Amino acid sequence: MRLTLYTDFSLRVLLYLANKPEQLVTITELADFYKVSRNHLVKVVHQLGIKGYILTIRGKNGGMKLARLPEEIVIGEVVRTMEPDFDLFECFNRETDACVITQDCRLKSMFFGARNDFLQTLNQYTLADALRPAAQPHEAFKTIPVVNG
Amino acid sequence: MRLTLYTDFSLRVLLYLANKPEQLVTITELADFYKVSRNHLVKVVHQLGIKGYILTIRGKNGGMKLARLPEEIVIGEVVRTMEPDFDLFECFNRETDACVITQDCRLKSMFFGARNDFLQTLNQYTLADALRPAAQPHEAFKTIPVVNG
Repeated sequence: MRLTLYTDFSLRVLLYLANKPEQLVTITELADFYKVSRNHLVKVVHQLGIKGYILTIRGKNGGMKLARLPEEIVIGEVVRTMEPDFDLFECFNRETDACVITQDCRLKSMFFGARNDFLQTLNQYTLADALRPAAQPHEAFKTIPVVNG
Repeated sequence: MRLTLYTDFSLRVLLYLANKPEQLVTITELADFYKVSRNHLVKVVHQLGIKGYILTIRGKNGGMKLARLPEEIVIGEVVRTMEPDFDLFECFNRETDACVITQDCRLKSMFFGARNDFLQTLNQYTLADALRPAAQPHEAFKTIPVVNG
């Protein structure tokens, strides 16, 4: 049982931005900090913008910042929005499902319920809950110099 | 968010066997019914045997059957047992984790909780609950002829 790297990176980006509320952050800064591919992050950041989680300011001194307060960003919603699908089994996708027992099988509804409980648990938390403690930056975030532009 | 085909097939095999309590079932029969690869099923069946869910009787008229009553086979336990891992994010695997904020990040514990709630929901059900109604075979199961040996 796994989530995609895409959702993983989405949360990391949001967490980083929540730790730097006073400044604009660049993709290069994120890539350097997390030691991950710039290409991956470009797609993630683009989608986070479309979904209304971040604002991007273009130009030489541009960068991105959170579009909402960390308290307003619900973790379960981020996962639901950024994860490509929640097709736990073949039968979850009606268009491609070829399982011969789908019509009669009760497993599907059980797993639907479990999936909903998974997201419901995550809906109890916001990005603010993921920050420790409150307005303090993560220890790891303190170790790197601020990079502007 | 996905589970593996391996777990999917495991549940299908168990469901089939639960529908045929009076007879020994072969891999060929399962492969024909579900229209899936025999090779995939061989691995799944082998593992189900090791984990104590099924009994295999060798020989010309051999085959497999459930090793326990459907009421004793808990869905969440099957998933936990058959799914290769539950590493939702990189940080879930300590040996390979390279995320720079793992030590300070609270997301991990949130997702641990969500994962547990997912399995907890599935632990409310047994294989018997997946059968409809009670001792009646699935409609789809009625459509194929009994194949022995």
